[in-house]
Formats: sequence, structure tokens, C-alpha cells
Amino acid sequence: MNEAVAGVRANVARLHGELVRYGLIVWTAGNVSERVPGADLFVIKPSGVSYDELTADSMILCDLDGNVVPGSEGSGRSPSSDTAAHAYVYRQLPEVGGVVHTHSTYATAWAARGEPIPCTITAMADEFGGEIPVGPFAIIGDDSIGRGIVATLSGHRSRAVLMRGHGVFTIGKDARDAVKAAVMAEDVARTTHIARQGGPAAPLPGGAVDALFARYQNVYGQRTEEGVAR
Amino acid sequence: MNEAVAGVRANVARLHGELVRYGLIVWTAGNVSERVPGADLFVIKPSGVSYDELTADSMILCDLDGNVVPGSEGSGRSPSSDTAAHAYVYRQLPEVGGVVHTHSTYATAWAARGEPIPCTITAMADEFGGEIPVGPFAIIGDDSIGRGIVATLSGHRSRAVLMRGHGVFTIGKDARDAVKAAVMAEDVARTTHIARQGGPAAPLPGGAVDALFARYQNVYGQRTEEGVAR
Amino acid sequence: MNEAVAGVRANVARLHGELVRYGLIVWTAGNVSERVPGADLFVIKPSGVSYDELTADSMILCDLDGNVVPGSEGSGRSPSSDTAAHAYVYRQLPEVGGVVHTHSTYATAWAARGEPIPCTITAMADEFGGEIPVGPFAIIGDDSIGRGIVATLSGHRSRAVLMRGHGVFTIGKDARDAVKAAVMAEDVARTTHIARQGGPAAPLPGGAVDALFARYQNVYGQRTEEGVAR
Amino acid sequence: MNEAVAGVRANVARLHGELVRYGLIVWTAGNVSERVPGADLFVIKPSGVSYDELTADSMILCDLDGNVVPGSEGSGRSPSSDTAAHAYVYRQLPEVGGVVHTHSTYATAWAARGEPIPCTITAMADEFGGEIPVGPFAIIGDDSIGRGIVATLSGHRSRAVLMRGHGVFTIGKDARDAVKAAVMAEDVARTTHIARQGGPAAPLPGGAVDALFARYQNVYGQRTEEGVAR
Repeated sequence: MNEAVAGVRANVARLHGELVRYGLIVWTAGNVSERVPGADLFVIKPSGVSYDELTADSMILCDLDGNVVPGSEGSGRSPSSDTAAHAYVYRQLPEVGGVVHTHSTYATAWAARGEPIPCTITAMADEFGGEIPVGPFAIIGDDSIGRGIVATLSGHRSRAVLMRGHGVFTIGKDARDAVKAAVMAEDVARTTHIARQGGPAAPLPGGAVDALFARYQNVYGQRTEEGVAR
Repeated sequence: MNEAVAGVRANVARLHGELVRYGLIVWTAGNVSERVPGADLFVIKPSGVSYDELTADSMILCDLDGNVVPGSEGSGRSPSSDTAAHAYVYRQLPEVGGVVHTHSTYATAWAARGEPIPCTITAMADEFGGEIPVGPFAIIGDDSIGRGIVATLSGHRSRAVLMRGHGVFTIGKDARDAVKAAVMAEDVARTTHIARQGGPAAPLPGGAVDALFARYQNVYGQRTEEGVAR
Repeated sequence: MNEAVAGVRANVARLHGELVRYGLIVWTAGNVSERVPGADLFVIKPSGVSYDELTADSMILCDLDGNVVPGSEGSGRSPSSDTAAHAYVYRQLPEVGGVVHTHSTYATAWAARGEPIPCTITAMADEFGGEIPVGPFAIIGDDSIGRGIVATLSGHRSRAVLMRGHGVFTIGKDARDAVKAAVMAEDVARTTHIARQGGPAAPLPGGAVDALFARYQNVYGQRTEEGVAR
Repeated sequence: MNEAVAGVRANVARLHGELVRYGLIVWTAGNVSERVPGADLFVIKPSGVSYDELTADSMILCDLDGNVVPGSEGSGRSPSSDTAAHAYVYRQLPEVGGVVHTHSTYATAWAARGEPIPCTITAMADEFGGEIPVGPFAIIGDDSIGRGIVATLSGHRSRAVLMRGHGVFTIGKDARDAVKAAVMAEDVARTTHIARQGGPAAPLPGGAVDALFARYQNVYGQRTEEGVAR
């Protein structure tokens, strides 16, 4: 178990670097968490720490109620202020192994308007199987955000949800998969925004969306290593 | 005292790198200053020096009237041409420990129109407690800019002010806090601009803004190390 | 022959770095291929592999029907899911030595609307000899994409085609030339989009376009080293 | 003389790196030249060479008619295809010591519409003393581009000109000063574009523009080292 926790700590610390690389976060906004395989535990970023200073040891181990496991405080800091939302998702959705939250620019712009991102390009059909939906406006600090995420993504193919007036949450089979969803959500949010600035862009035909999603989820890449949550 | 000054010099030199990293400045535009704790002094960037060449030693020590302290000219260059504005802020607002000025793209675009940035996303409520206000158009060279900053930020929760037709000034409890405000001001200026390009984005409810601001200022991160000015 | 294949493998692996450098791709989306000189073979990227992990050895050698040459599987992974489209182009257009596919933001935005990019700037006349045309919407998995590329680019000076609702494909005399076309296609897609946001931009006069294209293709640079396909 | 030429070669090679750093150029588009002090000579980039491969030795020495000085071909390549335009500027404007040409995105977008950039922010008044004007559409290959640059900038404070349907040329007292003008031209082109997307932005009052320009040209920075051409 200690070895599994150590591996997850290293993974979560490293994956924050992908959020920086793809320009999804500024300063200390945004966080990645990952479930510890075979345990009711997950690892998350400490609150308010610069991305340059994130190390495996500074990551924080929590139980599925979002409480810090005694002796596992990492840097001695508090866990991310979004910990309750991550914990709620892990409690409700056992197939989810990773959760990511960012305020990435274009996804957050759609969230500020409370407008779902329509599916007008094949990359979005591949990755999200249709539109990216909007969840409710929810104040941080209790289960509201977690409930909004779960309620919105249940019944959707999308691994990303735009929380109204806030930002984007993504889920995946593991943290890397959720980070990929965060990267792709911002990419399609940006492309679709820019497309529409120049005039209308018709949604893809539903049959094509279904075919693209089915192929991508089953055939693309090396599914044993990079599969998706659902 | 000499040790305190040396620490502030190093800090101010280093923090200019954050302005570069987040793309807030080009060439030599933009500057950071920080008050020397326990003294009527502050340290500021020299004028017209490339960010690659900024060292602790080249930073310039000034009194609160903006005069260079004899023997403290650093690189032998003049202090930033915005020194009078920084000095005015330190004279009038004793709780301010750091000041930053940039022409960052999106914040300056709002400033060019003289339009405050409305609070439509939670990150902005957290950081600024509401809209980012607009200060008057003021010509460089006397106290006008400083007076505009102080008059606008007095009575506002915001640590950022858009100076009309010019750019953005931010304040903080220290230079790092003011740099954070500059980074976040550009981030919310960009997101809000892009949101509105796609259609209307309703401001957050006032009660939610108050609750978010109160929580963030009191709970988020590790306040002893990263607190805000007010 | 083995030496020629090794050189093409190294070249294709390296050129993916140019797609990263110019911001044309995120995660594992996008691919470069190159024909092996003097053989009915080409080298292409494996599917779903991070750009950090691409090496010459992990590239995959295919015949012109898109089948992996036995013993040449590189990383043991499947070839890019766009392999059939690349193969079709090499079969139909013997003068093409390189093919690139990306979902670069601005080019894909034009593709999402199904709108050709008009030729309003000299850089576009130089490089593409006129507008960048739009090809049909085509589902991945058979020859449809390849047929759409070939049908659209036959009869056009452009080395780039916007595949409707999908992204951009470019061709060239070799892989470097096709990568250059991908970089320039995104650049002119972005500039033209931004130009039109501010008001109408008249297309260049046809005679000027012809003169610019003729000069650039025949005189510019060092044509023996950097020539174009047609 | 040989020493002076060597210094200019090194300077011109190095300054191309600033165009890359500030994102003003892609692939091999864009060039810097500098006059050799005290001689009727200038140094310019070779045509079609990657920015990674530019060295002092590969730069090319030309006379003021744009002819390569025998024995000074650098890399053995031709000089930039814009050499005639640079040469014309040096012949006609003896106070100019450096010339830069780019297709930077936002400046070129204004050029594509043939619209001057209005002066709505103080940074632009400082640097350009008013609007950035538009020059004629001119085909490459003879003196037309050079004539358009000189005719447009004579009678203007601006060191930058938008050549219609093409891109931007800047001049300066030396190459570094012209590079600074190219960096600032793109910066103000971008900010002004984005400002106007959100609604009207009033030009600054003429008196303020004059005062800002006079102060900046005479007081800012360390004028002996960073002065401007005129």
C-alpha cells in the first residue's frame, strides 16, 4: 500500500506540469487528484503552492470524505480547497480514478456564459462523444460542486463539465486520462469559440458523432495503456 | 537594515521574471517595487533595462518621495519612469508593501475603453471581491497617476486598477502579492473578454461574490505566507 | 535501403518537434509521414504516443496500402489512425514525398465552418498561390479522407486543404516541406481570421497573387534544398 | 572596418532571436538588417534559412544598392528577398541604422485591411507618437516596397509602417532600436485590436500624445544607449 501511495504521489505531482505546459493554469489555480488503486484514498495537491515547488512528498493523502490521513500531510499545508468536490466524485463514481479542475481560459469563458460547447469538429466527437455540458453554479465549501459534477456527467459521454460561472472539471480512469480530458476540453473550447467568431459552424451529424466516438474509444491508440473511464 | 534592503532587492529582481513568465510584459515595459520593512524606503526597477539583465544589484533604492537614496543607484541608471506613482501609493497607503505596473494585453484593452471588468467568474470574486475598477486618464511625470490609483482603490476590495488609456496597477501586502494580483488581473481580463465575445455573461450574484471573497481571503492557501494587503 | 529508411525515420521523428514548437498540436493529435525515396514505402508516427517519447526507432514503416511492413513495427504500437489517408495520398500523387495532419486551432476553425481561407496577404500568395480550399466531411477509417484530400488539391496550387469539420492536411515534396505548409497554413489562418474580425479585408488582385507565387516558388530561398512539391 | 563588420554581423544574427522570442515570426519569414557605421554597407539575413541556424558568419554584407559584397556571402546563400527594400531605406534615410521586417500576426491583420492603428494607449504615444500609418500595396522585387516605406514614414513620427496586404517594416537608429519598434508595433496592434473588439476606444487627446512622445523620446531610459532614430 505504501508503495502504491508513493507511485500516486509522484504521478499527481508530475501531472501538474502538464497543466502548466498546455497553459491551462496560472499561479496556483487548478489541481489534479488520483485515486489510490485498491483503497478508499486519493492524493491531491496542497492549497496555494506554486507549481514549481510541487514534489511527490508535498502531495496530500485523503480519505473519500476528503479528510487528510493523519501522518500524510505532505508539506504540512492544507489540501486543495477543491478537495471536497474531488472526494464527492470518488465516492459516487467508483469507475473514476482521476479528477482535474482548471480555470482554463476558453472553457471558463463558455462556463461564464453557461453555454455548452457544441460538437462541430471530429476531435470533439472522438474525445467527448458530443457536446460538453454545463453544470450548476455552486459555491465552494460543501458538497454542492461535487453534486453538480456527478449529476451533470451521469447520462453524458463527456468526461468534462463546465461549472457555470466557475471553470471546468474532468474525470478519467486515472489522473493522466483526466488531464488529457482537461487539455482536450480547452483545445476544443478554443477552436469552437474561434470558429463561431467567423460565422455559424454546424454541429456534426449525430450518426457521425456516434461512429467517431465508438471508434476512438475502442480502437485508437493503445487502449490498455490509455483507455478512458467509461 | 542593509540586510533587509538586500533581501528586497533580490526579491524585486526575481519577481520581474514572473511578469515575463506569464506574458504580462514585452521589452522593458512594466515594473515591480517593494517597500523595505520597517523603513520609509522602497526598491524599484531601473528604467529601460532588459529583463534578462536585471540583477539584485541593479535595483534602485528610493525614499517615499521617489528620490534615489544616495549611494544606492544600483546600475547607475535612473529608476523606473513610474517611480513617482509607486512612491505616492506607499506614502498614502501604509498597509501596501508591493506595487506592480504592467501594460498586459487584455487588462490594457479594458483600460483603453475605460470599462471596468465585471465579475462573472468565481476566480475573480475570490481574488478581487467584485469588479476591477477604472481610474482616470493621467499623464506620467507628477503625482497624477498615484493620486488616481489611490482614489480609485480606496473604497474597493480590488487590488487592481485599470488606468484609463494606459494599463494596470496592482497593490499587495508585499511585492509577491502584488505580482499575483497582476497575473490574476490579466487572467480574468482575458477570460471575461473572451466570454463576452460569445454573448452576454451575467455577473455573479452579489451574495455569492461576498461569500467567495470572504472565504478566499481568510481560508485559502496558507495565509500567513501568502496573505493579501487588506 | 535500410539506410534510407533509417534516415526517414529520424527525420519524421524530429519533425514532430516542429509541430510542437509552433503550437500546432496538443497531446497526441497530429502526425507527419514521409515517403522512402525510391521505394513504395513511407514512415509514419505510431498512434497515441506522447511527443516527448517519439524516437526514430518508434516510427512505423508502411507500404502504400497502409499496411505495416513486418518486422518494422517500431514501438510495437499501431501506426497513426490517419495512416490510410496518408497512404492514399502517396498512391495517387507520386510527386508528394511528405504529408502532415494537424488540428491546429485557426485552420480547424475555418474547417469547422467549411469556409476556404481567402488570400488577402502576400505571405499566403507566396506559399499557397491563392486561397486554401475546403475538402469534404469524411469519416475516418477507409479511403474517404484520402480521396477528399486528393480530389480537392488536384487543380489547386495550395499544398494545404481544410477537411470540413475536422482539421488540415498538407503535402510537400518531402516531410519538411509539408511541415512548413502546416506551419504557414496555421499562420495565415490566424492572421486572416484576426484581420476579418476588425472589418473586411479585400483579397489581393489575381495578377499580384500569380506574380508572387511564381517568384516565391522559383526564386525564394535556396530552391535545391527547400523546394516545393509542385 | 573588418572589426566593425564583424560586430554588426554578430548583432544582426543575435537580434533575430528577439523576433523569435516575442513570437513575431514563423519559419523563415522576417528579417533584420543593420548599417555598418561609417560605411555604405549593411548586413542582412540570408534568404530561407532557419532561425536556429543563423550565425554571425552566415549573415550577408551588401552595399547600398543591395548587391552582395564579393567575398562576403556568408553561408553562400542569397541575401533576404527583401534586401532591395532595406537598401532603398538606407540610401534615402541616412539617419536610419537598422531595418526590420515581419509578418507579425496583429500588425499584419491591420495591414490586410489597410487600416492605420489608432493611438488609444499611452504606450503607443510613447513609442510611435501617434497612429501607425499604412503604406501602399507593393510587389516584391524592385524598389516599390522601399519607396512605399520611405514615402509613408517621411512626415510621420512613427518608426513603423504597415505595408498594405503584406506586413510591417520598422526603422531605428540601429538594429536593436528597429527590433524594439517591431516588438512594440505588434504589442500595440494586438492590444488595440482586442480593445476594439469589446467596443469603441477613443483616441488619446492630441496634446497628451505630444507630451507623452516628447517625454519618452527625451527622458525615458538611458537615451545614450537606447535612443531612437529621429
